[in-house]
Amino acid sequence: MERIEISKLNQTYARLVGEEVAVCGWVKTLRDSKNFGFIELNDGSCFSNLQVVFDDKLDNFSEIRKLNVGSALRVQGKVVETPQAKQPYEIHATQIVVEGASVPEYPLQKKRHSFEYLRTIAHLRPRTNTFSAVFRIRSVLAHAIHKFFQDRGFVYVHTPIITTSDCEGAGAMFQVTTLDLVNPPKTPSGEIDYAEDFFGKRTSLTVSGQLAVEPYCLAFGKVYTFGPTFRAENSNTTRHAAEFWMIEPEIAFADLNDDMKLAEEMIRYIIGDVMDRCKDEMDFLNKFVDNELYERLNKVLNSEFGCITYTEAIDLLKKSGQNFQFPVEWGCDLQTEHERYLTEQLMKKPLFVINYPKEIKAFYMRINDDNRTVAAMDLLVPGIGEIIGGSQREDRYDVLENRIKELGLNMEEYQWYLDMRRFGGAPHAGFGLGFERMMMYITGMQNIRDVIPYPRTVNNAEF
Amino acid sequence: MERIEISKLNQTYARLVGEEVAVCGWVKTLRDSKNFGFIELNDGSCFSNLQVVFDDKLDNFSEIRKLNVGSALRVQGKVVETPQAKQPYEIHATQIVVEGASVPEYPLQKKRHSFEYLRTIAHLRPRTNTFSAVFRIRSVLAHAIHKFFQDRGFVYVHTPIITTSDCEGAGAMFQVTTLDLVNPPKTPSGEIDYAEDFFGKRTSLTVSGQLAVEPYCLAFGKVYTFGPTFRAENSNTTRHAAEFWMIEPEIAFADLNDDMKLAEEMIRYIIGDVMDRCKDEMDFLNKFVDNELYERLNKVLNSEFGCITYTEAIDLLKKSGQNFQFPVEWGCDLQTEHERYLTEQLMKKPLFVINYPKEIKAFYMRINDDNRTVAAMDLLVPGIGEIIGGSQREDRYDVLENRIKELGLNMEEYQWYLDMRRFGGAPHAGFGLGFERMMMYITGMQNIRDVIPYPRTVNNAEF
Repeated sequence: MERIEISKLNQTYARLVGEEVAVCGWVKTLRDSKNFGFIELNDGSCFSNLQVVFDDKLDNFSEIRKLNVGSALRVQGKVVETPQAKQPYEIHATQIVVEGASVPEYPLQKKRHSFEYLRTIAHLRPRTNTFSAVFRIRSVLAHAIHKFFQDRGFVYVHTPIITTSDCEGAGAMFQVTTLDLVNPPKTPSGEIDYAEDFFGKRTSLTVSGQLAVEPYCLAFGKVYTFGPTFRAENSNTTRHAAEFWMIEPEIAFADLNDDMKLAEEMIRYIIGDVMDRCKDEMDFLNKFVDNELYERLNKVLNSEFGCITYTEAIDLLKKSGQNFQFPVEWGCDLQTEHERYLTEQLMKKPLFVINYPKEIKAFYMRINDDNRTVAAMDLLVPGIGEIIGGSQREDRYDVLENRIKELGLNMEEYQWYLDMRRFGGAPHAGFGLGFERMMMYITGMQNIRDVIPYPRTVNNAEF
Repeated sequence: MERIEISKLNQTYARLVGEEVAVCGWVKTLRDSKNFGFIELNDGSCFSNLQVVFDDKLDNFSEIRKLNVGSALRVQGKVVETPQAKQPYEIHATQIVVEGASVPEYPLQKKRHSFEYLRTIAHLRPRTNTFSAVFRIRSVLAHAIHKFFQDRGFVYVHTPIITTSDCEGAGAMFQVTTLDLVNPPKTPSGEIDYAEDFFGKRTSLTVSGQLAVEPYCLAFGKVYTFGPTFRAENSNTTRHAAEFWMIEPEIAFADLNDDMKLAEEMIRYIIGDVMDRCKDEMDFLNKFVDNELYERLNKVLNSEFGCITYTEAIDLLKKSGQNFQFPVEWGCDLQTEHERYLTEQLMKKPLFVINYPKEIKAFYMRINDDNRTVAAMDLLVPGIGEIIGGSQREDRYDVLENRIKELGLNMEEYQWYLDMRRFGGAPHAGFGLGFERMMMYITGMQNIRDVIPYPRTVNNAEF
């Protein structure tokens, strides 16, 4: 008999009442008495479990009643409606085959485990309710992002992971090499001889695909990246991982306003899509992980996003009467406490802050006419602060060349990037969304380690 | 006036005849005479160009007629039907604004360039017809893969890029480090002291996500990876890149037959989807890159896939009377010449070869009852040979443990992987599809460097 998935059965059981079906899955709980028992079976096709009733008419009743939690089963049985019970139907087993037994030491017994402990068994935690919810949402969110861009004609570009560029000059990088570290080849002056390395040059893991995707934007008009990026920062916080995924759209013939419009539309779409498609998972997270999750997400869906300039933001923060840990002055970078005050307390909705001082932003951002600020935008959301950072790119060859010189960057390395401003360099803009930060926002999970299947952080690359 | 994309205009021009529209894009060609001129404009929203007619009624006529190829324009003008011409409509410009000028040295003048030359200007080649087609198909193919799996309830899993495992023990790996190579910390015995490295261990770039995704398969039932993988192999061929993307689905409660069924269904779906959605691009490639492209792809869409055992394949090869460079004996690995003979000459359709000798396959493949072969499958397709490799996984704890011992692998490192066979280890199977190999197959491009935006190969990590 062909197996049916529980997600499918949930939709079709009413038509199958009285009929025999076959399901496969893992034992979440098992209760038994002398002549019968109950199994909560989960097959991963959906969040909910299926109740299986079995009794001593089974040949292997004595084996089944002693099964350990986690065992993999194939169950054949009749669909029975249960209008009085919590679940609308159950399966009365006529045959149960053990596909893979479990053992008494199975770590996921029916009790609550701390997230810290579950991190040590990252290969098993997707079987728990919380992580089943989180990692199905991760998949649905990733697809929502692709759908959003593909449906609007954006071209997905795989920018390189291994790179010789250090992009914005920002962020510590991991080196990638095939040299023998014990005895590396050296030049006469005692430097490492990278001519002998795999790529004939010193190479690193990318910190951003933006520079590499811009030429594709100036060919296809609308593009996006979605891939892993890396930061070798020695910061052991709940918000930093050494390996994380980033989405970087880039649009041509577009300015900062178009960029903000795109960001707002995307945020609304992906939150709405996940809330639609992962109802059970979101209900669970709202109930057990973060009681204010729905309220916060609905606010994003239903408010018009605000927009103020950095200069206005500084004024508002100064007038706020708040006792900030980091004092504010025009020219300083906004800290999370400032961002959260602006979006949560003052505006009570998502808020773009635009036109930052050029000194605190990257070299490729377009300089405004005031010559002090750049056409940059950060999107701040209640509960988290900055979730998106973007800008219009400097499209004037001479202005960009001057910035590169001013900042002492290697002109030769950026020649191809400058080229894009000589060969029909249309105005263009883009932004970056950290996928894991979005995951934390949408699930209410507080630690980035709990939204990545196998997180990589300082001193940790297990599994 | 709000801008309309050319892809949209192509669908709606009939309703817009006589009306004024605004389009943006880049000059592909420009021809002018004394009082008027023609511009082929491309905005990247689709493969085709838009014809713009301009004349000396424009204030800036003398500027426009001298524009260099590649210039970025904003054109406002009237939609005019042209039933006599090649294209069904054109735009008669009332205003042309130069958004970004180009220069006479612009490398993409109207003449054919070799693929070799175009690789040296990887930042500009997506503006050519061939690479515009290739890289739009790359995007559409990637999305087709996501749609295929997501529509069927598969969960997308981001397996780690940085890893301490060397997976199948196969494939040279890139090392990832933050140590100072000139003066690395050493242990008293003169070894590199990896306790001082970022992760406190020696780490590398992943060669496969399979082992890491299996635990997710045994939680969600159906999962897939789609991410970058790396091989530090010093092979300078047209088919090898150091960085490439791979798709690895994994299904639970499934055997080798289910695995083959999934592979066949996926291949048909993604080819069909790209042929549907990229008609102009595929027509171009079939005409200018590979005249047999459609014929070959249609054969895949319309033939039933064959299936023979490795043992049968060896017999057929021996009886073939062919003069192979590599002689065949039971136990040898099949070479591309053998694979192509089987699928092209003998079967004339896609062909699964199953049940390979265990000695030539990876440790995690399920040993068959004959104890000589494993439940592995390779999918061979005409024109290329192997495109997919997969297997049912060894789900018996003791058998797997013995294999790991036999092969001298580090038991401790694989303990979590073995765990999955103690904790309800259901039968499961999966396969790997190299994304770039599929790209080459579907586009007819002959060099892997020409299907990756910025390819990474031996001695090359430019841009």
